[in-house]
Formats: sequence, C-alpha cells, structure tokens
Amino acid sequence: MCEATAYLLNQKGQEELYLADVDLIEPQEDGTIRLVSIYGEQKTLAGRIKSMSLVNHRVVLAEA
Amino acid sequence: MCEATAYLLNQKGQEELYLADVDLIEPQEDGTIRLVSIYGEQKTLAGRIKSMSLVNHRVVLAEA
Repeated sequence: MCEATAYLLNQKGQEELYLADVDLIEPQEDGTIRLVSIYGEQKTLAGRIKSMSLVNHRVVLAEA
Repeated sequence: MCEATAYLLNQKGQEELYLADVDLIEPQEDGTIRLVSIYGEQKTLAGRIKSMSLVNHRVVLAEA
C-alpha cells in the first residue's frame, strides 16, 4: 500500500535493493538507521538517508 | 494517497504540524532537510529525521 522500497547506493553509484515494504525508518543516536518492514523484517545500516520520494515509494540510503 | 504529514518535535516534546502531503524528503550536505509537498510547497529545516512510519503517513522531525 503505502510502504516503500529501500535501496542502498553502492560504490559504483548503483542502487541495490536493501529492504522491501518498509514501514518504519528510525535513525539511531549512534549514526545507524533501523528499518522495519510491514512483515517485521528488520535491518540496521550504518549510513544515512540520501533521499526519499513517498509518492514513488522509494527510499535511497547511502553507507556511512 | 501515500504522501505523509511531517511533524516537528518542539522543545516541549510536542509534535507540531510542519508540512502536509510530503512527497520528497532530501537531507542536504549542510545538515538541513528539504521537504517538498505534492503541491510543490517546499520547506527546509536545520534538523534531522527523528522517525518515520510510512504505513501511518507520519514523519517526525527534530531541530538541530
């Protein structure tokens, strides 16, 4: 529905699928970002949000 | 549809409406975050994303 797909920007500048059906995006105090999908799958990345388009259901992340 | 409402967490810990119908969220190199609504309204905040729930259409921002 309104969840998004998170992509990770790799060193070649390409977007790799990181986590699908993302609901929660929670930057942590330690510089990591915790993502949780609607199915309860969780991933934590040492990195930052590069950009997001909610209408296009896209989140692009970059590693720290 | 799938755009979200952005709230700003104030010093009292309360959420104030910051921007409705947010489509784009673009953290900038200088530590600010640029938000653009589906109507083209733009706001830039010196701050960070505190949390987001896409299923609940909510983005919570905190000032730097």
